[in-house]
Order: sequence, then structure tokens, then C-alpha cells
Amino acid sequence: MNYTIVKYILGQVLNIEGAFMVFPLITALIYREPEGWSFGFTGLLCLLIGFLLSRKKAEGAVIYSREAFVTVAISRILLSVMGSVPFVITGTIPNPIDALFETVSGFTTTGSSILTDVESLPRCMIFWRSFTHWLGGMGVLVLLLAFLPIKGGSHMNLMKAESPGPSVSKLVPTVRATAKILYIIYIFLTLLQILFLLLGRMPLFDALTITFGTAGTGGFGIKNDSMAGYSPYLQVVVTVFMILFGVNFSAYFLILRKKFKQAFSMEEVRWYLLIIFVSIMTTAVMVTNMYSSFWEALRHSAFQVGSIITTTGYTTTDFNLWPAIPRTILVMLMFVGACAGSTGGGIKVSRLLILAKAIRRDLHLILHPRSIKKLKMDGHVLEQDVIRSTGTFFVAYILIFSFSVLLVGIDNLDLVTNFTSVAATLNNIGPGLELVGPMGNFSVFSDFSTAVLTVDMLAGRLEIFPLLLLFTRDTWRKH
Amino acid sequence: MNYTIVKYILGQVLNIEGAFMVFPLITALIYREPEGWSFGFTGLLCLLIGFLLSRKKAEGAVIYSREAFVTVAISRILLSVMGSVPFVITGTIPNPIDALFETVSGFTTTGSSILTDVESLPRCMIFWRSFTHWLGGMGVLVLLLAFLPIKGGSHMNLMKAESPGPSVSKLVPTVRATAKILYIIYIFLTLLQILFLLLGRMPLFDALTITFGTAGTGGFGIKNDSMAGYSPYLQVVVTVFMILFGVNFSAYFLILRKKFKQAFSMEEVRWYLLIIFVSIMTTAVMVTNMYSSFWEALRHSAFQVGSIITTTGYTTTDFNLWPAIPRTILVMLMFVGACAGSTGGGIKVSRLLILAKAIRRDLHLILHPRSIKKLKMDGHVLEQDVIRSTGTFFVAYILIFSFSVLLVGIDNLDLVTNFTSVAATLNNIGPGLELVGPMGNFSVFSDFSTAVLTVDMLAGRLEIFPLLLLFTRDTWRKH
Repeated sequence: MNYTIVKYILGQVLNIEGAFMVFPLITALIYREPEGWSFGFTGLLCLLIGFLLSRKKAEGAVIYSREAFVTVAISRILLSVMGSVPFVITGTIPNPIDALFETVSGFTTTGSSILTDVESLPRCMIFWRSFTHWLGGMGVLVLLLAFLPIKGGSHMNLMKAESPGPSVSKLVPTVRATAKILYIIYIFLTLLQILFLLLGRMPLFDALTITFGTAGTGGFGIKNDSMAGYSPYLQVVVTVFMILFGVNFSAYFLILRKKFKQAFSMEEVRWYLLIIFVSIMTTAVMVTNMYSSFWEALRHSAFQVGSIITTTGYTTTDFNLWPAIPRTILVMLMFVGACAGSTGGGIKVSRLLILAKAIRRDLHLILHPRSIKKLKMDGHVLEQDVIRSTGTFFVAYILIFSFSVLLVGIDNLDLVTNFTSVAATLNNIGPGLELVGPMGNFSVFSDFSTAVLTVDMLAGRLEIFPLLLLFTRDTWRKH
Repeated sequence: MNYTIVKYILGQVLNIEGAFMVFPLITALIYREPEGWSFGFTGLLCLLIGFLLSRKKAEGAVIYSREAFVTVAISRILLSVMGSVPFVITGTIPNPIDALFETVSGFTTTGSSILTDVESLPRCMIFWRSFTHWLGGMGVLVLLLAFLPIKGGSHMNLMKAESPGPSVSKLVPTVRATAKILYIIYIFLTLLQILFLLLGRMPLFDALTITFGTAGTGGFGIKNDSMAGYSPYLQVVVTVFMILFGVNFSAYFLILRKKFKQAFSMEEVRWYLLIIFVSIMTTAVMVTNMYSSFWEALRHSAFQVGSIITTTGYTTTDFNLWPAIPRTILVMLMFVGACAGSTGGGIKVSRLLILAKAIRRDLHLILHPRSIKKLKMDGHVLEQDVIRSTGTFFVAYILIFSFSVLLVGIDNLDLVTNFTSVAATLNNIGPGLELVGPMGNFSVFSDFSTAVLTVDMLAGRLEIFPLLLLFTRDTWRKH
């Protein structure tokens, strides 16, 4: 383990967080909220620690995958710990475990909340809470990669460790340029959504925070009823943008390059859209009698399906009251998740595609034991490594999921609450069913379970392995 | 596809089933039950069809894995269809879908029942129902392998397709001798359990049927309260034998050969026993206050844990009333299942071991990208093929599980009932939680859901791939 380079990058991450705290500070000034001081204080604290950590430049050091994974894991934890300070020192969320849960929920773009009355929070706190979604969505490390002067090869390892999905492809020859393009697309889509929301007469504050939650596929509501109180137009805009932010960003890059055919033939994106379409239609038909018209049912179905598969977590209706099949569809979509290379969580459509292809190959091998069949995706041969690690990821995912459900059982709530609370956090969704359904929240859990679910959010966002490595002794040995 | 050989073997399977129907016939004669005629009739029908199918000897034909998988799948379906005839024609279970569910539940050693009052059944019916567990446990095909004169290589492919677990090892150089040894151990343990039960003054009829259910890890109760009404001694005997029948039979073979050290160092068996021990202790501690003493709690915990992990499904207490953690442990054990090469179902301990080892290797590969690390089990290197197909199996398992939960949702029951009814059938356990808990039964489902769960029982017992192949067009092409 090369500690110098890890410290250097973590320092830079804190510098960025500190700098970004100026936004909630400005919000506090506008709304004349006294709690604003906490952002000034915490921001300076971040810059101070960041300065101390990044003093040693570690020039010439190469980041191997070991350092990359560790850096990625610690950076999200560090961001969350520092980000929770304002909640605690102002007494907005006095219990540090709850405050950490809320901030991890923000940076991992989960959107699960322990708050029972979010509307009573100061505006600056609501702003910061939603802004952590935006920062967490594309990732602070990717932002760093766009500017950080580090040695060749290092960028790629960091990118690999930070990016969600089974494999990473550079859009352009250098990782630095790739990171820049990703952020340009991210910012462009964000501005576009804000514009559309403002056109629907949404107040600016709401437009900003709701968009942050959509872009990062986070889903922190700024109202107690999430999105239920907004007009149908605004709900439809959010539906569309949630689905857009769940698309693999490579598709947007191809569109930018005017390679439309290539963009629209991406297998993952096609399946993603197909799953969404089928789910919306099935759900709409099955809940029609609960709403005044099929179109209303369709609107709510589209919103809920889009929200859950992209792991955003906004809601417009209490889907906990839906019949068993639509509810089961939503729980399944929680695990499916969005596309790789998007801001969404979950297992990812491309991973499931790879696994499905592997099953088909195994059936083929039984019938033709001596045949050699290479798996392909988008016309390219899938490397054996990618297939293997996708399988391992899936297994680790299910195991962590099961053990979390077991541990959360300590509070002796009903099994559906236990199951879906873990599903909602591990997949970075937000709401689950029953007690943690759209009308409930995560305050029902004990400190112990809250801590377990906090770890689950991190495990989900980091895609498990970086977090597991933190607990492997071998990781910490010197090279 | 070589149809001649498949037909020949299926014919022989039916011959065996027909012959074995003499046992319920004798039972009917002893208890003077008029329903006995149905076994005479169905038995003769089996022999007739069996004769017609196996007329053509197909000598010299080799069974490739394609034929093996198809034969294994169809044989269990055929056994169940013919085995359900007596229930239907006597009106004991008038609905054919229910009768098929009950018989598939028998031959797949599941033990889920649609009967609300089993005690009202004629004795010969109860006997046959339990006897299907015994036949299904070690498998009719394995019995056939011990005697069938087919060509070299063919035996092994059939054994591979029929045996539960990630890989098959011959105990002795020939498959035929292996099959014989397996049945000798099976019969010996069966007789031993009958003896111990008789020593505890259990009536002979009960001792036979309860033992059939234990040996095959089936779990059909012959009383409405399953095993709750029997003495603690009898419950303890059944606990011990359930766990014994869940052990990899290779261990018994090694003990027979006096290779004690090798037998007790089998990784799978060690983990199996460790999981049982930890689960029993945790559960006992958490349910102590529900029983009159810790020892009573321990007895019930041991019985329930042993019953669920071996996928037997007998019960002595309503574990549906237990707190969340013990209930979650039971649900997890449903998936773990027994050892490979035992009569139990589920994913199997050895598969989970292989998958856990694969996760550890992947962590190692992140830290040491250029290292080469072979996975080992019991000191032998695991073939890449086995690791790959274990991963694929796991994924296919979870996918089939999820879709089944979705389909069963059509009855709009609670999600825990849906989830655990699929878990209980796909893993060949018997009871689940809530409506399908120890005090409930599967009569709550519509015909559609009953059919889905029937397929799940078959998928679980056949370990998925043989069943999937039946629906692959490529399977049915001529060579």
C-alpha cells in the first residue's frame, strides 16, 4: 500500500467538498438562516484537513488497483463523515449515527431518510442534503480525475474502481478527457432538467434540489410527500429525466459524436428501455382501478417504475398499497438497477445481461460439450475476466444482502420491512415497502440496524469489492 | 437426440414404479381399504406402458449428456404423473392439478401439501405418499443404474445429470458399483431409523412412513400437526437422522472403507455441521422465552434447523411465531440446503463453499493482479468448469426464484407467503412462513400458482438445467 498517494488524493477530495460547501452557505445567506455558520465552519475544516493531507505531492507514484480501490472506498466514507458534521453541530439531526446515515444516503445517492418531517429543516440543510446526491452521482473522484495531475495508468485504475458496472471503457484515449466529457454531459442534462422544471413554474429552490436528486439518482424528497404534490407536468418531466440519467452515458457520448446508430443499438440500453416499458405497462394495467383513469394509473406507474429501476426513489403515490404483482415488480426492479456507466445503482442491466448470456452458453455446452462459444456484447467478445468477476459480484451481492436482512432482524419488525429496507439501501434506491414504504421512513430502526443499513448503502454504491478490501489484512501490507 | 435409448430408460423407470405400487396395495389389504384397487390398476398401467416403451432394447446406444439430462427430467415428471393417478381415480384428491402437486412434492422430496386434513386419508394413500419420498430421495434412476445394462460412458452421464451438487465423483471405479453402494448405505440408514423409532414405541406404520420422509428428506407429515405430537425421544431420533441423511454420502462410503480421517476432514461436511450448530444455538437462545425451559427450546431449535437445512420439512412447533432473526435464519437455511451427494435439496453447502472461495480469489486478484491462484476443495484443485457452472447455477437459481415469486403474486397474498412458498418448493423443503407456515398449507393457492410451484419443485430437484433443456429447441434436434 502506497499511503502517500492515497493521502494526497483523499486530501484533494476534501478540498473539493470544502469548496462546494459554499453553496449551502449562500443558500443560508439568501434565506437568512443562522444555521449557515455550520457550513462555513465545516467547509474550512475540510480545506484545512485537505491541505494537510495533500501537502506531500507524491509525484511519480503510480496508483495500482489496490490503492485505487482503497481510495475510492475511503473517499466516500470521508465525504460522508465530513458532510454530516453540519447536521450534528446545528442539532438538525442530533444523533451522529442518524446524521451519518442521512449523509451516506446522500453521497451514495440512495435517498433513504431517517427524517420524519423534512419540511421543518432549514433550507440550507435541505439544499446540502440534495446537493450531496449531485456530487455523489457522477462522483467526486471522477471530477478529480478531470483535473488531477497523476501518472499514466493511475487514472485508469481509479476510474475502474469508481465507475459502476462490470467493465469500464474509455470514451476517448485518455481517462482525463473521458472524465471531462462525462461531467459536461452530466452538467448539461442537469441544466436542461432545471429549465424544464422552471418552465412548469416550479420554484427555483425546488427545481434545483429536485434536479440534484434526479441527476444523481438519489431521491431525497424536499416535501414530506416526496413528489406527490407537484403538477402532472412536473411529475412527467422528472419521470423522463430519471430514466435519462439511468442510461449508460456512453450512449450520450456516441450521440454527441453523431454515431446515432451505434448509440441506439447498445444492448444494455435497449434492454433497459424494454424492461422499463414492460414494467410500466404491466403495472399500469394492474393498478388502473386504484386511480380515476388509466392515464393517471399510467403516469403513476411510469413515475414509480422509472424511479425504482434508476434507483432514484422519488414517489408520487403510496405503492405500498398496490397489489402483490406490481409490488413484486418494484422489488425486482430494485435489484435490476440502471445501466452501467450511469449515475444509478443496483446490480445493473449489463451485469444481468452478461449473466443471462452465461446461462445460455452453459445450456449450449451441455448439448455440445466440445463447442467453443465466446460471449459477445455489442459485437465485442466479453473477456473471461469480466464474466468471472460479474458472477462473483452477483454472489457477493446476494450474500451481503442475506446477512444484512438477518442482522436488521434484531429490531423484530416484519420480514417485508427488513427485506425491502436492505434492498432499498444496498441498491441505493430510497424507499422500500411496509414501514419503510413511501409514507414511512428509516427512523423505525435501532442504532445498530441504522449502522448496518449505512454499510449497505456504501457497499452498494462502491459495488462491494472496494469495501470488502478495507477489511482484508493483505490490503494494508506495504508493497 | 437419440429417442430410442431415452424411451428405453423411461420404460424401465415406469416398470420400477409399477412394481413398487405393490407396497401400498399390501397396505390396503392389511387395513382392508377399498381404495387399494387404484394401486393395482395404476401399477399394471405402469408396467404396460413401461413394457411398450422398453421393448426396443437400444443396445449399443451411448447416452450423451443431452440424452442424460432429458431422461432425468422426463423420468421425474413421468413418475409424478403416474404416481398421482391413484389420488385422482379414487377421489382422494379429485383436482388433477392438486394431485400432481402432491405427487411431485413427493418425488421431489419437497413435502409441501395441499391437503388440509391428512389424517382423513386412507392408510394406503398415506403410505404411497410417504413412499414417493423414499423413492425420490436417492432417485429411481440411480436404482436403475445399479442394474441397467447400458454402454460405458452412458452411466456416468446419467449419474451426473441425476446427482445433486456441483460435481460428481465415483466412489468406486464403475458407476454401477457406486450406485449399488449408495443404495446399500441408504437402505441401511433407513432400517436403522425404523429400528430406533420402534424402540421408542412408535407404531410400525408411523415408523415406516416417518422414516421414508426422513430418508428422502421429504417431510410429508402423516399427522395434521406433523411431528409435534410425538415424544421428545422420537423427535430427537428424527432430528439426528434428518441431519445424517443430509450428509454427503461419500463420507459414509469413506467410513465404510475405514478412512475415518478423510471422512471427517471433508470441507463440505464440516461446514454443514458448523452451520447447523451455530444456527441451532442462535435460534435456541432467541426462542428460549417461548418454551418452558432452555432444553425444550434447544430441542425445538435443533429439530427445526435440522429439518429446514436438510430440506426435510417436518415440524414440531409453529416457527412462524418465532421472532424475526430465527425466522430469517430458517429462510436462509432453506437456500443453503444440505450437502451435495445427499438426498437433500437447496443450493447445497459445497456450491456455497465454491462460490465463497471464488469471492476470496477475486479479492486476492485485485491486490495481486498477476498472481495465479487455483481454488481447492478437500485438497484437490477445482476445475474451472465446475467453478463456472456453479456460478451459472446460482444465477439461474435466483432468477427462477424471482420470477416465480412474481407469478405467484397473482393470488395477491402477502409477500412473505409468496416469497417463502417459492423458497419452500424450489428448495424442496415443505413448509414456508405465514399462510404456508407449519400450521398452514398450500391449498390457499389458485390452480395457476399451484402449477408454478409444481414446476419450481421439479426445477429445484433437477437442479434447473435438465428442466431448462426441455424448453430449448436445440435439445430436440437429431444428432
